[in-house]
Formats: sequence, C-alpha cells, structure tokens
Amino acid sequence: MPDLGALLWPRTVALIGASASAESLRGRIFNVMRSHAFAGQLYPVSRSSAEVLGLKAYPSIADLPQPADLAVIIIPAKHVPEELERCGKAGVKSAVVLSSGFAEAVGEEGSEMQAEIRAVAQRYGMAVMGPNSEGFANIAANLCPTFSPAMEAGERPLVPAGRPRPQLAVAAQSGGIGFAFFDHGRAKELSFRYVVTTGNEACLEALDFVDFILEEGKTDALLLLLEDIKSAETFRRVAEKALKAGKPIIVNKIGQSDAGVRAAASHTAALAGAYAAYQAMFQRYGLIEGRDIGEMVDMAAGFLAWGQRLPQGRRVGICTASGGGGGWMADACTAAGLEVPELDCETRRRIDAHLPAYGTSQNPVDATAQAVFKIGYAGLAELVLPSPVVDAVIVVLTTRSAANIERQREAFTRLAETTQKPILLWSYTLPAQKSVQILSEAGLPLYTGIGNCARTMRVMADYRALRERFLRPIEVRNAPTPDKATACAALAAAGTALCEWEARPILACYGIGGNAAGALAGSAGEAVTAARAIGGPVALKAQSPDILHKTEAGAVALNLVSAQDVRAAYERVLDNARRSVPQARILGVLVQPMAPPGREIILGVKSDPTFGPMLMVGLGGVAVEVLKDVALAPVPLASSDARAMLARLKGAALLDAHRGAPPADVDALVELIVQLGQFAADHADTITEIDLNPVLVHERGKGVSVVDALIVKQKQ
Amino acid sequence: MPDLGALLWPRTVALIGASASAESLRGRIFNVMRSHAFAGQLYPVSRSSAEVLGLKAYPSIADLPQPADLAVIIIPAKHVPEELERCGKAGVKSAVVLSSGFAEAVGEEGSEMQAEIRAVAQRYGMAVMGPNSEGFANIAANLCPTFSPAMEAGERPLVPAGRPRPQLAVAAQSGGIGFAFFDHGRAKELSFRYVVTTGNEACLEALDFVDFILEEGKTDALLLLLEDIKSAETFRRVAEKALKAGKPIIVNKIGQSDAGVRAAASHTAALAGAYAAYQAMFQRYGLIEGRDIGEMVDMAAGFLAWGQRLPQGRRVGICTASGGGGGWMADACTAAGLEVPELDCETRRRIDAHLPAYGTSQNPVDATAQAVFKIGYAGLAELVLPSPVVDAVIVVLTTRSAANIERQREAFTRLAETTQKPILLWSYTLPAQKSVQILSEAGLPLYTGIGNCARTMRVMADYRALRERFLRPIEVRNAPTPDKATACAALAAAGTALCEWEARPILACYGIGGNAAGALAGSAGEAVTAARAIGGPVALKAQSPDILHKTEAGAVALNLVSAQDVRAAYERVLDNARRSVPQARILGVLVQPMAPPGREIILGVKSDPTFGPMLMVGLGGVAVEVLKDVALAPVPLASSDARAMLARLKGAALLDAHRGAPPADVDALVELIVQLGQFAADHADTITEIDLNPVLVHERGKGVSVVDALIVKQKQ
Repeated sequence: MPDLGALLWPRTVALIGASASAESLRGRIFNVMRSHAFAGQLYPVSRSSAEVLGLKAYPSIADLPQPADLAVIIIPAKHVPEELERCGKAGVKSAVVLSSGFAEAVGEEGSEMQAEIRAVAQRYGMAVMGPNSEGFANIAANLCPTFSPAMEAGERPLVPAGRPRPQLAVAAQSGGIGFAFFDHGRAKELSFRYVVTTGNEACLEALDFVDFILEEGKTDALLLLLEDIKSAETFRRVAEKALKAGKPIIVNKIGQSDAGVRAAASHTAALAGAYAAYQAMFQRYGLIEGRDIGEMVDMAAGFLAWGQRLPQGRRVGICTASGGGGGWMADACTAAGLEVPELDCETRRRIDAHLPAYGTSQNPVDATAQAVFKIGYAGLAELVLPSPVVDAVIVVLTTRSAANIERQREAFTRLAETTQKPILLWSYTLPAQKSVQILSEAGLPLYTGIGNCARTMRVMADYRALRERFLRPIEVRNAPTPDKATACAALAAAGTALCEWEARPILACYGIGGNAAGALAGSAGEAVTAARAIGGPVALKAQSPDILHKTEAGAVALNLVSAQDVRAAYERVLDNARRSVPQARILGVLVQPMAPPGREIILGVKSDPTFGPMLMVGLGGVAVEVLKDVALAPVPLASSDARAMLARLKGAALLDAHRGAPPADVDALVELIVQLGQFAADHADTITEIDLNPVLVHERGKGVSVVDALIVKQKQ
Repeated sequence: MPDLGALLWPRTVALIGASASAESLRGRIFNVMRSHAFAGQLYPVSRSSAEVLGLKAYPSIADLPQPADLAVIIIPAKHVPEELERCGKAGVKSAVVLSSGFAEAVGEEGSEMQAEIRAVAQRYGMAVMGPNSEGFANIAANLCPTFSPAMEAGERPLVPAGRPRPQLAVAAQSGGIGFAFFDHGRAKELSFRYVVTTGNEACLEALDFVDFILEEGKTDALLLLLEDIKSAETFRRVAEKALKAGKPIIVNKIGQSDAGVRAAASHTAALAGAYAAYQAMFQRYGLIEGRDIGEMVDMAAGFLAWGQRLPQGRRVGICTASGGGGGWMADACTAAGLEVPELDCETRRRIDAHLPAYGTSQNPVDATAQAVFKIGYAGLAELVLPSPVVDAVIVVLTTRSAANIERQREAFTRLAETTQKPILLWSYTLPAQKSVQILSEAGLPLYTGIGNCARTMRVMADYRALRERFLRPIEVRNAPTPDKATACAALAAAGTALCEWEARPILACYGIGGNAAGALAGSAGEAVTAARAIGGPVALKAQSPDILHKTEAGAVALNLVSAQDVRAAYERVLDNARRSVPQARILGVLVQPMAPPGREIILGVKSDPTFGPMLMVGLGGVAVEVLKDVALAPVPLASSDARAMLARLKGAALLDAHRGAPPADVDALVELIVQLGQFAADHADTITEIDLNPVLVHERGKGVSVVDALIVKQKQ
C-alpha cells in the first residue's frame, strides 16, 4: 500500500495546470487552496506562465526546488499518464488527478489511459487519488486541493468556533455529494477532519482512506458514499476494524435501483453488484445505512456526541412544552422502532411536583410552557433521565429564539457532561444559527427533522447492540467437524450441476440433510421395493443433473401409498422428465419417505460477484414467495448471525407458536443455516449456487427436513 | 354554523387581558399584534390599566365604543365562561380563547368549564376558537392574535417579496406545531394566507376552518394537523369539497402510536380513534399524509407550484451535472415508487449534441458541469421535458452560489411558465437564501431533502390519479337491487350475535354468499341425508349464536365423505360445542358442500367509533395473517374503491396468475366487496361487526365462495 500520509499530509504541494483564471476549474482550485492557511509549500506548475497570482510558477514538476509530496493534476486527460510519469521520475510521492475523461467516458480510450495511470502509480509506488476526482480537504491541515465551492473560504470558518469537538470524516466517490456532506454538516456546527473524494478509483478506493483515517485514530465517525467496492477483502478488513474501534460508518450505496446502477456506471465507471449483497455486508459489519444527505449528517451528529454513551436499549423518554410536538415525536419514535413507555411512579412524582394541572408526566412528558419557563429544558430532561424505564431522552423544544437558548447555555452544557444516557433535541421551529452554535458547543445534537431525530436514536441503540454481539468471544460449537476433504473430492468429481441424489452425500459431510435420503430406483420394481421398505407414503423424483426444476417438469410425484400408485408414478415421472429435456442424463428415480409437516423455509446460497457466497433464508409457501420475504448474509455465519437473519424476516413470527401450533424448532434451523454457511464458505471457489428448497422446520425438538437439494458449480 | 368570517376577518378586535409586560403571554400577544399593520381597530381590555402600551384600555368589553367583531381572551380559565357571557351580551360575534386549563387538565372542573364555553357560544351564536388555542394569523389581513414567537415581526416580512404566489393555509389543533409550519414554510419562501390553531375545539374544529378557507377560494393547498376529529360528517363533507376543488390537504394525525394517543388525550383532550380508520378516510378522500413538518411543507410547495399541471404518471426524467447526485436521486425516486425510464432515442440525440464524451443522456442525464455551464440547468431541463417517456422532471443541482442562480433567473422563470410537466429541483448543497428567493419567485420548488423531493413528485402523481377517479361519473352497476327491507326486518328479529345459519339469509338479500348455504341437520340421520343430497365431500359446523369461534371450539369437521364419517362428525362437533360453551343455544349442525379450492381472503366490517363502519379485506392463510396484510376503507364503496383497496395489499400479486395457476376471479371479489360495503352502510346503525372468513376466490370466471359468515349487532 502506497503512503496515504504523503497524500493527505504533504509538506510540499505542486499544482500542475495552475491558472489565474477564476472562471476555470484550474483557477478555482488555486483560489480555494490559497484562501486557507496551509502551512506547507505550494508550487504552481504552468507551461505558459512564469507566475500565477503572485506565486512563482515552474514550467515542469522536474524544476521544483524540492520534490513535491503531492501533485495536484488538472490538465486534459490525454496528457495525464505522461505527466504522472514525470511526477514519478521527479520523486513525487502522491497525486490527485482531478481531470475527467477516463473510464467514465464513452469509448475505450479513457479506460486505457486509466489503466496507464494505474501502471505508473504502481511503478513508482505513488499514492494516486482519482482520476475524475474532485480532490480532498484535510481540514485539520487547512489543505483543500479541490475546486469544490463548498471549500471556498467564507463567513463560516472551516471548523466550528469554540471548544474542539469530536471529528467527522467523509469518503465519497462522488465529489459533488462528498463536499455536500461537509456543507450540510458544517451548517449544523459539526467538526470535519477530512473530506476525501475518490472519483474513478483507478488506484486507491474510498475504503483505503477510511483505513488510513481509522489507523490515525483522530476521527470519531465516518460518512461513506459508495458507488461500488473494488475489493471485498478491503471492505471486510476495514469494516471490521471500524466496528472493533467503535467508529461508526454511516453509508449510502448509490445504485440501489436499476436507474441508479446505470448512473453509477456512467459516472465513476462503477460496476455495481447487487444492492442486496451490499446491504447484507453492511448489516453484518454494522455499517449504518442513510437515505439522505441530511439524514446521514444527522446520524453522525448523534454518534459524535454520544459515541461513548450509546443507548443501552430502545426505550425513550420524551419531554417537551409542546403537547402536539411531544405526541408527534412519540409517533415518530414508534415508527422508528423505539419504545415510549409510561414512566415509573417515582419519576412521575418528581416531575409532577413541577407541573400545572394541565401538564402530564406520563411520557411524553408535556411540562407546559409554564413549567419549562421555571425549570428550563435541561432541568426537565434531568427529571426524566434517572427513570429506570428509559435508555435515552429526547427533548422537543423551540430554538427559534437564540436568547432563550443562550440563557440556558450553562444548564445544557452541564446536562451533556453529566448524563450517562444520550439526549437528542428536536426543534419544531427552525433554529436560529446562534442556537445551533450554543447547543453544538454544549454537546447536545439538535435536529430539525423529527424522523431523523428518532431514527438516529434507533441506529445508535442498534449499533451498540450489534457491536456488543460482535465483540463477544466466538461461541464454541459442539457440532462434529465437517469432512471437508471428502466433500472437496466429491465436488471435484461431479459435473456442473448436481441433482439431489448427487448433492446429498456431499452436504451430509457437513451434517446437512440428515438421513432422509431414500433410495435410487432404476426400475418400477425397485421403486416398489424401496417404498415397501420405507413403509409409509413416499415421494418419487426423477434424478438428473440436466433437470434442475423437477416440479415444473412434472418429474415429481408425492404422497404415494399403494404399490400400484408407486409403479404408475415411476413411469410418469420418467416420461415427463424425458419429455421436458429429451437429452437429459437420467440417474434413476429417488424414492423417499414423505417428510412430516413443518413450516416451509427456503434456504439458498448464491455467489455475489463482489462479495462471494451469500446465504439466503426466506419463508416458503406461495403467499410469502409473492411477498419476497427473504434475508441475506455473507458466509460463514455464527449462530447469532443466523438468529439475526431470521429476526429480519417480516414473517419471523410464523416460527413462533400460533393458532394452537407449537413453536418451530428454530435451534435446528439455526444449526442448519450455520452448517450451510460453513459449507458455502469452504467451497466458495467451486460452487456458485446451492438450493435447499423446501426445508421443513418441525415443531420444537423435532428438527428440520431438507426436502430437496441442488448444487451448481462454477463454470470451469 | 356561526360566522367564521367575523373571527378571521374582524374589523374590530378586543384583547381581553391585555398587558404591557413583555415577559407574559398577554404582553406577547399584544406585541405580536401591534407589530403588524392590521387595518382594523384594536381595543385593549384591562381591569387594572387605563392604558396599555400607549393605547387606551377599557375596563370591560361592555365599555368599548363599538361592539368588537372578535374578542381575544387570555385570562385565568376560571373567569373565561363569565367573560364569554359578557362578550355575548355586548354583541361580540366571535372569540379566541387562549387560556389553558380546560378539558386537557387533570380533574372534572376543566371539562365542566369547557362545556360552559360551548353553551355560551351556542346561546349567542358566537364563533369560538379554543380554549387552549394559540390563536391564529390572518396573514392577508396582517392580523396575528397569538403569542407565537413565529409571528413576531422580524427580518423576514410575513409574505415573500416579489410577485404574489399561490397561497397556503395551516389548520392545527396544536399551536406550537401549527406556527412551526409557518416558520418552516416561510424560510422556503412560501406564501401563507392563514395559520389557525384550534386547541381543545370546544366549539369549532380545524375542519370548520378548512371549510371556510375552501369556500373563500383563495388558498391553493392546506396543511392539517389533527389530534382527533369531532364530526365524521364534517370530515366527509369538507374532504370531498377539497378534492372536488382540487385543493390538496396534506395531513398528519397525531396519535398513530399508543404513546401518541396518550399525548393527544392529555394535550388537547382529544379522544383519538383508531389510526387505521383515519388512514382509510385519508386514502378515500385523497388527503396526503406527511410524516414530518419539513416533508409536509415540501409537499405543499410542490402542489402550490404545480396544482394545475400535476404529473400525468409516475415516470421521471432526472438531469444534473453531478453523476453521484443523479444516481442517488434515481434511487430515491425508485424508493418513492416512481419510474426512471431510459429516455427515447430522439430525446437522447438532442441531449447528446450538448454533452462531452464523459456525460450521459440515458436517464439520469449527467450532462457534466461543462455542458451545464453552457446551456444552464433550465436549458438542460428543456431538453428532457419533451420526452414522451417522462411525466415530470427533477433537476439535481447546486444552489450554494446565489450568483449562479441569479444569472439563470430569467431562464428559470421562462421554464416554469412554459412547461406543461412539473419540475422539482433538488439542491445537494444547502442553498443560499437568495437562491431560495429567486427560485421561489420563478415558480420552481426547491428541495434540500432528496426523499422529500421524490415523495412530493409521487404524491402529486397519485393525487391527480385519485382525483380523476373521484370525479368520473359513478359507474352504473347491473347488480339486482338489494332487498333492504327484508334484511332490516330479519336483523331486527335476530339476537345480538348471528351465527352462519342466521346470517346467510340476511346477507343473501344483498347477493352475498350465493346458494352454498347447505342444510341444517337436527340429528345424525338428517346430516347423513343432507350429505347424500349434496353428493360430494361435505363440512359439518355446529350452529349457535353463542359460539362465534367454531374452529377453536372444535365445532367444525371438514372433508367428510362416508355416511359413517358424517354420523361420527355430527356427534363430535355437537359434543365439542357443548363442552366449549355449556349454556350455548345450539340451532343444529350445518351440512355444506366443501368449497372448491381458491385463494383465501378475509373480509370483514367493523364499526369505528369516529367514522362508522369500515370494511377490511386481507389475504388469508396463516402466513399472511402473521404479516397482517390488510386494507381498510369506509363504506359504501364503488368498485373502483374496491380495486384500489386490493391494490394496496402487499400480496396483491397472489391474485394474479402464478406458478402455473390461473388468475383469480378478481371481478367477483370486487363485486362481493361492493355488496358487503352496501350492506354495512345500509345497516350501519344496527351492526357492529361482520366477518366473512374465509372467502375463497376461485379462478377467473368461477366466482367466490363465502365459506363462513358471522354478524354481530350493536348492543341495544
């Protein structure tokens, strides 16, 4: 890995393509950089001018008085590779390529030039950001090599005035949106350390910068905007590092829809994989998905303030002087999956002592304007916080008058310092900017959106719970060690598609499927004999690696009891199989006992092009298939991961006791999911798809039946 | 109905309880009122002062030189009834009661005083707002009898500068939130006509003011915040009036959650009915639900600009200079249920003529900064608008620099004037306030939230579609006229609960249930005879008005074929019935043919305390019961309403053809829903509950089977 320190923290910077024209992007970069007090040396490089805006310019990177740590390159695309080569020769350690017209452009030429950039960077070990990047801002160093108008020096300094705050960083492929995060967050008086925009990511991707930022250890939360991921391995490593360190990453993945995928492809040449797989990865590693710039910034504000004091649960106390505002917040909290319990008697008694007859202490606590005028919002929050039935407090208030907030400044500051439970504020009126400043400095995050406020509380509680689960020592399982070698050999010997009869012995190496395999019959007589040996109603299924959808082919017969029925079914399923795929290689007809009844589940594994095998679990049955109620997760999985997957199903309650039916054997299902995940992980390079469909989950204590199985290998 | 014109448009206003103290609410009202140029006469009434802030004060309302049109009352609760009486005697036509401590307070006393207020108002025919109101603002008249800080005169005038805009009105029970809508909307340069906050609604409710505003005809969209509805009849009448006039009402109902209900009850003494019933009413009449103050204001902004040019469909063209922003908007549109289709070749050709190689015209159109610099955002939108595959356009842009927007002012204005398709703007950077002003005056709604922008487009398209459906002449049905008189008589003669055998003949008067009633057997022998007459497998069900849940009682036997089985089942279901409810009055055992297979549906009617009978349809089967996939609608329903209900089910696709099964007979199901709705509407005063569960919907052309039926009458 090249030295990102040289890129983000250079002492000497060369601006290649420097211009004095304020109208051009080149001129704008120069202006943005000069408007901040960067302590290092800035060298304009220009072929045409000996001086740019009062600074001596150099005709070539080779002519600088000392090698630059960082070259900022904004020249026409076609000259970039050769310029980068010159930089390499001149000993430049890193570069930001802001020029456009590479892999994102129509035609082959741009992609070829991008490949050249990668090659040059590797040859010289240079850290290269871009091309098609909008640059970055190292706010801590006052270094802003970007043409983003959001980084122009203005009325608002780069960091909030007053005491230093926890710091936020942005890593985005898109420059426009990357700097928009800064714009939104700075208006809310958040303190940013870095904004990094990586464009086409020919060499370095956004996650490489996240890695650097985590290693540096001075940033408390990150905003990440992804169009694609170049290396799943980097994602896993960096995401795990962030989760271990307790540095939340709030993420949006562009390309959740088909139109979004089209946009990403043409924008930063991103080849987006399936969004569902991204989402499964985010869920596994605790990345928090946001849907809007404002929402992501609002979530970050919560984590910056309460990272060390996240809510221990989802129970919220709401207090306010606006009954309508409190009621609305209660609805918003409920919609966000939080609980708003009635407060305990002791807490209510303490609150009631301050309320007029037309106030209420139940929760939401409507203290009325009269009481709040006396005890203040901070005083009100302090009355609610000790309640044993709440994990956090939301104060609903108006911050329109800065004078009112100023008057309570000390109380707010003390409240933020002393509370052990997080507090969020929602202002139903728009805050005066001075109110925002006071509350930010006090350490209390202020929201103008009711939904963002409630959802921030929810994701803070979820993040804490997920992280605690992640940090717990891995469970020790008593399951027998899978026979990986046997499975490997059998897989290697098999064809591309493995029908149930072929797949079962391989799955059995991992304990999957039990002993319900049945017998393969080569004649109607053999089928009758097998059925007789089973002794109850049986199923017959034609077995062929060329017929993967047996039911549709009519190659399955169920619930056969008499010898006559078995015989007839034998001929029928074979006929249908042959008719459906005339050239099919047919191994025989599988005779199996009918599985006892159970809840129908679909289990599967599919190889995602970016992240490898993803395990899918869904509730079966026609009704739920239509509703597409499935959950996805990367493999392997711990049993706690499997349980979390099941909990994500909308119809999870189907596995509980209901309508007089006993609860399903969820433990056995979890065990099966873990086994399947292990199998998929062990054979990730060989297998592209596994289907266990249906799986019947019997009542508690009676296990599961894998009723059908199919494995598809990767094409060689 | 008392004269709301006197209340909202008084020429003379008395302020009862006037005070000069700027710290008190009384003093604040006076200050707020005096800070705006109200053209009428303002009379302070004060027992203690002969003058308030330079204005002659009067000791009593009786002493004014002329009767006041409006009395603004802010004195302790206990004096309010007598003061209102004095107002009545003095010929005052209307009053706003801002005092608190009535029905929302603990104890009986407040409720009693509130009843007195109502009585006095009725006696004198006075229009009374409140008590516990925060007053109102008639912005068109510069009249602001309220202590809301949002209405204090400040830097920002009450209405936007520049050309007059379409006007917005707010009606809210909650004062704090009511005026917060003004605060949020005014910051977005929206023009408000009224803000009305109704508090406890002892006499007038929010919808009465909506009615007045609609009749006046000068307001183009309304924001409505409800805690409850006092009169369902008013709701129906006013909502229908708004829909006919094409004046969208954007609504939030506080008390969607249990905690929200608690809050509303203690806040404005609202007795909230079930939120689901409110939601069904909103859906029927096209009220648009918003979840956040900002979202509701943003939706209003869309309607204010495009009320006469709403999108004809859900297809959106997106254009931008930010690839990342365009991609994100495409995702947001898809999430909001909009479509982002690839543009047609002709349109692409026109756009491509302006793009560099690294731009794209597919949709989202990423024109790149270079092209936008040349043709401007308006020019870009004009290239996309004519495409036959889009109904609307969203421009993704940056409005951080007011100078950039100012430069394009004329082009934006022309664009807004000439387009026949609506255009929304999303700025990913925060806009300069001057940008907001320019774009508002140009007539182009500007969004800072991506979700709000996409959802606004969606609800505009939905509103247009719903309104067109609503305005279409009522369909003529060929169905036979129901025999209401017979049903009435039979219902009157029946007991409180009607079992299937009793309910069927009554439902049959409306064509519900068909002829599958079967026969009632009084002995095992009769049951066998009935089964033989049917000739196929039968079901047996014990019939008793005292056993409403037959399956749970074991009082049902299915799929009986042999005489022996029928005989045994007869005894068994009777035994079980008697064991489950020993005192049950048992009418006999119903013998019915087994219904042919079909999709399982639940149909029911329940009487909502606020809105009367609500029809419920849901997909049956254990899986979907767990997922609670149901839709609700008020009765009666047209068949288009019934179809809209079915479309709201998440599992609606279950009724389509799938897995080789033919499509279900949706027409027959719709007919059944309409019949049931008519029945429920005709007997709303008698019936409290109807259950048709299950209903089996057979394949197309084969109708439906009502497999079980139950009616519960209201307690006398």
